[in-house]
Amino acid sequence: MRIAVDAMGGDHAPRAIVEGAVHAARDFGVEPVLVGIPARIEAELRRVGAGALPVQVVEAPDVIEMHEHPAMALRRKRRSSIAVAVQQVCEGHAAAVVSAGHTGAAMGACLLILGRIKGIDRPAIAAVLPTVGGRPVVLLDAGANVDCQPQHLAQFGLMGDIYAREVLGIPSPRVGLLSNGEEDIKGNDVTIRAAGILRDSKLNFAGNIEGEDLFFGLADVVVCDGFVGNVVLKCGEGLVLAIRQIFTSELRGWRGRLLGLYLLPLLRPARRIWGRLDYREHGGAPLLGINGVCIIAHGRSNARAVRNAIRAAMEAATHHVPARIISAIHGEKAAALPCLR
Amino acid sequence: MRIAVDAMGGDHAPRAIVEGAVHAARDFGVEPVLVGIPARIEAELRRVGAGALPVQVVEAPDVIEMHEHPAMALRRKRRSSIAVAVQQVCEGHAAAVVSAGHTGAAMGACLLILGRIKGIDRPAIAAVLPTVGGRPVVLLDAGANVDCQPQHLAQFGLMGDIYAREVLGIPSPRVGLLSNGEEDIKGNDVTIRAAGILRDSKLNFAGNIEGEDLFFGLADVVVCDGFVGNVVLKCGEGLVLAIRQIFTSELRGWRGRLLGLYLLPLLRPARRIWGRLDYREHGGAPLLGINGVCIIAHGRSNARAVRNAIRAAMEAATHHVPARIISAIHGEKAAALPCLR
Repeated sequence: MRIAVDAMGGDHAPRAIVEGAVHAARDFGVEPVLVGIPARIEAELRRVGAGALPVQVVEAPDVIEMHEHPAMALRRKRRSSIAVAVQQVCEGHAAAVVSAGHTGAAMGACLLILGRIKGIDRPAIAAVLPTVGGRPVVLLDAGANVDCQPQHLAQFGLMGDIYAREVLGIPSPRVGLLSNGEEDIKGNDVTIRAAGILRDSKLNFAGNIEGEDLFFGLADVVVCDGFVGNVVLKCGEGLVLAIRQIFTSELRGWRGRLLGLYLLPLLRPARRIWGRLDYREHGGAPLLGINGVCIIAHGRSNARAVRNAIRAAMEAATHHVPARIISAIHGEKAAALPCLR
Repeated sequence: MRIAVDAMGGDHAPRAIVEGAVHAARDFGVEPVLVGIPARIEAELRRVGAGALPVQVVEAPDVIEMHEHPAMALRRKRRSSIAVAVQQVCEGHAAAVVSAGHTGAAMGACLLILGRIKGIDRPAIAAVLPTVGGRPVVLLDAGANVDCQPQHLAQFGLMGDIYAREVLGIPSPRVGLLSNGEEDIKGNDVTIRAAGILRDSKLNFAGNIEGEDLFFGLADVVVCDGFVGNVVLKCGEGLVLAIRQIFTSELRGWRGRLLGLYLLPLLRPARRIWGRLDYREHGGAPLLGINGVCIIAHGRSNARAVRNAIRAAMEAATHHVPARIISAIHGEKAAALPCLR
């Protein structure tokens, strides 16, 4: 399986991206297609000693920076690393694309090149989080769309339902709406109207879900706009890093180290939760609603995160997620994936 | 010092409220004024054996329930426990009011009875959170206003600046805007416009703050709308409870218990963070922007949380927070606190 990787996207690109791709090639037998400036990619390949591993390099001279406006940058930089990487999927050279670069640019490139699934107005990033009970919860949108209309949130519910059903194997997923209170009158203008649409839909709507209940399995799918989803996930990550940092600093010295040895097995179940929240472990989240598989990795991804994002891309491609969404909306016949260009 | 307490508000009212108030009277020498249905309050007072403690009971026959629309409920139920409790502050019988009931109703009662501070369009709940560095961060709005305009967010920045300066003693607080990316182009429509107002203000504006950086002290004041603030805080609480629950379940059995004995001192610094996120410990957060001191306690407050919310009310009243905000906006002369009715 070939996975296209935007080698120039991310805070630590191309170094961490190339290194992560090489680890993925070694560990999972995947064939990464590294897209970007060849000289820089090849220098990194030599540095990590990629040797005989099956790593392809595809040229893309332009790079979209984090501060650029995505739509304008995509128009101006026709041969950006993200656009050329998405093109690899469109042309059938790669089964999926991974990017740790500008999320808006990745979404824009996917929309322009692969196209939207009919019936979905906005794609959404689906983050799969663990709960105390053990059954995962799908939180979407985790950051693709900052300003959403009620019907967008309802469509996120539909995509989350399909993802939970088809990929996670949950028979009748309970779809909740992230809100500031469980009562029906709680919410902002957009969520209150979205609740109305979801209540009238065929989905198994569980009503409002409070932040406190997110990790306790009160719903299998939790819907929110991309601004809220991004802030919630990043706050969770920050909190977990903060607690971890405090632990690590306490485990210094011989007494601490000795305790650490006893502590490690004890911390294992807690790590399940913070491991899923730690982007270096889960690697990335799928962008749902487009005609192809795209994994959005964290901008701060290190090599380990990139390696794991490539694994996530392999899993999503194996599950044929876009085809499942298309067939759930339009029936089995429509499930072929035509590329727009 | 007398503190008015809405005895009927909260998931565990009046039992937990009365018990918490009795503990506060015993532990802090405060005089709680319990407002609600006297027969029910007195039954609880007998149950906990309040005896000779200085606890007052003030009659309020109506109760506003969580599912009610705040403005309509306040109009219909003129003698609700929250309205009568706020009236105690207005008339000078109490130095502050505490409520674990309907947040919207508490804010509505404060606006109607105590009034808004001139220059502030919307009051905001200010949550004080710890950071890894030790210096606290003020997050506001933590849940008073779900739909905000850019100028509201800018005013929250102003109130947060005054609170951090006057109460927390931070000389030139850095005011950040919670967003989905640190770059200026990141944000939703409202936060991008709010950033423009904050950049032009006299505040020490630190730009966008990502969720991940909230607990790492990149800003002293972090501004967001009440929907986002509520969801973020409750997700943080939920995450901490989830991690805690995993630890507790792992510390069962003799081996776990033995380890627990060694672990307890080790967990102390981590507890500082989750203690502040745990509403049972911090008790509540001040509602800033009104002509008086009001502490909003968590709806799920138990007796311990209510006791601590009363302590928070005593602290806020001692610091004369509303007077500081008025004098910072309008000069020292204006700092008297006239009640509207």
